[in-house]
Amino acid sequence: MKPLSATPRTRLARLPERVRTDRAVLYEILDEGMICHLGVVVNGAPRVMPTGYGRLGDTLYLHGSTGARSLMDAPSQEVCVTVTHLDGIVLARSLFHHSMNYRSAVIYGVPSAVTDADEALAGLRAITDNLAPGRWTEARMPTRKEMAATAVLALPLDEASVKVRQGPPNDDEPDLALDVWAGVLPVRQVFGTPEPDPALRPGIPAP
Amino acid sequence: MKPLSATPRTRLARLPERVRTDRAVLYEILDEGMICHLGVVVNGAPRVMPTGYGRLGDTLYLHGSTGARSLMDAPSQEVCVTVTHLDGIVLARSLFHHSMNYRSAVIYGVPSAVTDADEALAGLRAITDNLAPGRWTEARMPTRKEMAATAVLALPLDEASVKVRQGPPNDDEPDLALDVWAGVLPVRQVFGTPEPDPALRPGIPAP
Repeated sequence: MKPLSATPRTRLARLPERVRTDRAVLYEILDEGMICHLGVVVNGAPRVMPTGYGRLGDTLYLHGSTGARSLMDAPSQEVCVTVTHLDGIVLARSLFHHSMNYRSAVIYGVPSAVTDADEALAGLRAITDNLAPGRWTEARMPTRKEMAATAVLALPLDEASVKVRQGPPNDDEPDLALDVWAGVLPVRQVFGTPEPDPALRPGIPAP
Repeated sequence: MKPLSATPRTRLARLPERVRTDRAVLYEILDEGMICHLGVVVNGAPRVMPTGYGRLGDTLYLHGSTGARSLMDAPSQEVCVTVTHLDGIVLARSLFHHSMNYRSAVIYGVPSAVTDADEALAGLRAITDNLAPGRWTEARMPTRKEMAATAVLALPLDEASVKVRQGPPNDDEPDLALDVWAGVLPVRQVFGTPEPDPALRPGIPAP
């Protein structure tokens, strides 16, 4: 796998120990995430929207309604896609060294509108598999009309800034003597019990 | 409380049933969140970074190192701050109607650099209270040098787009007869057991 090469905007000026250039770490962060934050520029100002995504090899797929302006504005314009996992609250002895344990991937690029029907379907499958594994073969396939209402965008994973902070707080040495608890409060996302649609026909078990 | 008034970019063209104009919902989404995604425009391209934040009344506070370019570039430039809660995966009978239950706040504005020492401290306290309640009075206060290394930005909560999707899938009526499970898989963030710093002095209980 080709490592992630630094570009001026992905080269980190501060905290170089957090940078990861291993492409496998990028894949792991993306594959473990459920939503991304998509940044676009609209009339010169930034707009950041939460949305689903999926990865196939070195391509990230996004989708949306053909009626959604911010997504339809994106082809041929630079976007930024950020996926973040909050892994813990870092409680230091000093307020200054309070921090977060996290893994983030910040991807820059120009997405292209997917016009090939097979690739559009593969992209939608990647998005579905990322959010709801197994559903692609269980649920009803999109109709031609539904496909026509769905915009699929492909963003190459060429330029990305991957950062990871883990481990205990980095207090200054003199502060270690303070009478203050220090450590990490882990954070994670969990699933609850599936809640059936009130209109669900009887006798259909949860997947 | 003044309701959120629509501006051209917060007026939603699609799915108006998801829009909330009640300022209390904005507060709730912000106060329940731990990180936001801050969007800025750098050299004409969007950049989206995860970061902490805090709210005091109708002001959102952000902070960062005075050495972090993307934050220091922000005063006097438009930014977008988005806070998203993923509440569930919506599993429909059709792939097309798969969705997410979520609550999101998208805030637009021009932040100002906080130069008043008391307001900077109040802003940092709001950020700390949001991520690590109680620590402000437990941990060591920032020194003058630490304060000088910390940039605090204030963003007024004047223009925001608040959206909420909740409840079961919205399948098309003919699909209700399908033999496919449908419902919501709830998602939530939980805290684990605090992990003490290996360098923690003995005898200090977790907060």
